Amino acid sequence: MAMSFPSSLSEPVLLLDEARVRHNLKRMAERAAAAGVRLRPHFKTHQSHTVGRWFRELGVEAITVSSLSMAEYFVADGWRDITLAFPFHPGMRDRVDALAPRTAFGIVLADPQALDGVRFSTRVDAWLKIDVGSRRTGFDPEDLDVLRDLAAALAGRDDIRLRGLLAHAGHSYDARGGQAIAAVHAETLGLLGRLRDDLADISGPLELSVGDTPTCSTVGAFPGVDEIRPGNYVFYDLSQWQIGACAVEDIAVAMACPVVARHPARGELVVHGGAVHFSKDAMDFDGQRIFGLAVEAAPDGWGALRPEIRLVRLSQEHGIVAAPDEVIARTRPGETLLFLPVHSCLTADAMGRYLTLTGEPVEMTG
Amino acid sequence: MAMSFPSSLSEPVLLLDEARVRHNLKRMAERAAAAGVRLRPHFKTHQSHTVGRWFRELGVEAITVSSLSMAEYFVADGWRDITLAFPFHPGMRDRVDALAPRTAFGIVLADPQALDGVRFSTRVDAWLKIDVGSRRTGFDPEDLDVLRDLAAALAGRDDIRLRGLLAHAGHSYDARGGQAIAAVHAETLGLLGRLRDDLADISGPLELSVGDTPTCSTVGAFPGVDEIRPGNYVFYDLSQWQIGACAVEDIAVAMACPVVARHPARGELVVHGGAVHFSKDAMDFDGQRIFGLAVEAAPDGWGALRPEIRLVRLSQEHGIVAAPDEVIARTRPGETLLFLPVHSCLTADAMGRYLTLTGEPVEMTG
Repeated sequence: MAMSFPSSLSEPVLLLDEARVRHNLKRMAERAAAAGVRLRPHFKTHQSHTVGRWFRELGVEAITVSSLSMAEYFVADGWRDITLAFPFHPGMRDRVDALAPRTAFGIVLADPQALDGVRFSTRVDAWLKIDVGSRRTGFDPEDLDVLRDLAAALAGRDDIRLRGLLAHAGHSYDARGGQAIAAVHAETLGLLGRLRDDLADISGPLELSVGDTPTCSTVGAFPGVDEIRPGNYVFYDLSQWQIGACAVEDIAVAMACPVVARHPARGELVVHGGAVHFSKDAMDFDGQRIFGLAVEAAPDGWGALRPEIRLVRLSQEHGIVAAPDEVIARTRPGETLLFLPVHSCLTADAMGRYLTLTGEPVEMTG
Repeated sequence: MAMSFPSSLSEPVLLLDEARVRHNLKRMAERAAAAGVRLRPHFKTHQSHTVGRWFRELGVEAITVSSLSMAEYFVADGWRDITLAFPFHPGMRDRVDALAPRTAFGIVLADPQALDGVRFSTRVDAWLKIDVGSRRTGFDPEDLDVLRDLAAALAGRDDIRLRGLLAHAGHSYDARGGQAIAAVHAETLGLLGRLRDDLADISGPLELSVGDTPTCSTVGAFPGVDEIRPGNYVFYDLSQWQIGACAVEDIAVAMACPVVARHPARGELVVHGGAVHFSKDAMDFDGQRIFGLAVEAAPDGWGALRPEIRLVRLSQEHGIVAAPDEVIARTRPGETLLFLPVHSCLTADAMGRYLTLTGEPVEMTG
């Protein structure tokens, strides 16, 4: 185990393996094409103009974001079909109104009063957010009266076009393995299909938009679905690997952390790499709560997982690493250890930038 | 409960109550003066030139930071006495060497080989980091041979002056109430005092530097101590309140979050305010894992705690709020709810900026 790449860092760096990213993008584009659905990837994971352009090279034209700031950032790089997949509320009105003349823009409604007092100067698309089981937000599909009233109110407006039903099966993240994910998927599509039928007399044909990364990575068919919105697959991470949504080789970002101290008596190393770098998202692995797992350094990036070298505690800047005695014995302060993150979306957001394996900085939205 | 201030936000904003901050700063400056110790506050919590100047107005000249980036940021605003209270490793050498001609600079050593191959062009101070019980990092005070060898090696160098012993009693965060904190404090001082005596024949008189916020906020006497380094007290937070280190009225930052959806059937609201705003640090409160508690809005900021309105789950952008039925019934999308954070250091770092109660933006290190 060389673990000497990159050498002599003064602080943690989030490495981005462009080849792995492009492989992930291509495979998902092929899956979407094979399934006959539009791919509207979620850009909240990478939040980067550079990475966004890699999607565009594969023919992606429509994207998803989770904040107004991200929408503004990607409009500035020429994206012209954006859905803000976060519930709209009246405080967003002015910024949406400034965006809508520059891009086809979709908002998501999750509350019957979300549009109270709101009128747009340029027409926007609206999607009804349906809670298909994750219990985060969205309309209960059983509340048909509420949904029909809202659809009727939207049908009478010329500043909004009700375009479809949108769902995020966030509970697929609790699934383990392909069969469990497929069960969540089948239930989601059944539910959305029935709801579309129930609203057809008011709204005409509605589109269906679904798409979490576990489902889109493992399920081949999307009957009745118009578009999918996976996001995390650009990088994947240890959570997705644990779910069974990716192989460990698909994970396309790794944090390079300098070792700062060794504590052989307690079987631990300390690295620079804490909560402000990884975020505090943890997962259970092998009976332990972890924030990252090490990978071998390799001349061209990183290689095999070293699951016995684990980030087990984080404070603001410190990462505490449990490691076997022989690893601790041959490690020196200033050497670099590489870790795959538990949740790449939050890690990328916390870091705010990447470094490619050829040493080029890749910027993100500020 | 008005909770309408500030009105119509398009996204979450971290409010900073300057009067509360100045009150916290003044009280700690007075405590340090009364105890006869130098106050070297930790600036990792606020990370802001503006807030830093409020310390300077109270006579603070020496500061602590936890990264090279922070050191560089504060040197740029004229700070000329900085300790980097994070373990030094050889990868830091060049940036320290660039800083040292511009500021009195202190590094912290936590590994006997941290200086291997390192020489500085300008002399820096070094502090030996002692693990007084938190088991994060630092030398075991029982390893006297290691410490004496290192002290001897430093005594032979002219690019480094061994200045003292530095400790962070992080386990005081697990203490509850003044007596438990005082016990940790007494143990820490006893341990450091003995170690200073044990090294005196090699190093001459060494300084002692201690100072977590719980201890510095509740303990009046620091016998034998030269400086204290509390940081979080600039803002405090719910964790410190739970420990007993502050009153709820001392907490000086609050996140203003727009309500985006209501889910009365499950007793929850959804706000814009997620992991990328609050961080994922949680605490146990009243039998529940929480990420924040609401406070009343007031014309001049915020008032009483509303502990029955709780942030109970976070995803990247969403915050799920458990609230009583009558609160949900009178809340509308677009209204603002205010939350005190669990851990203000991570919240401030995640947000990257503040807004004062008079609406002025306050920038932080990027």
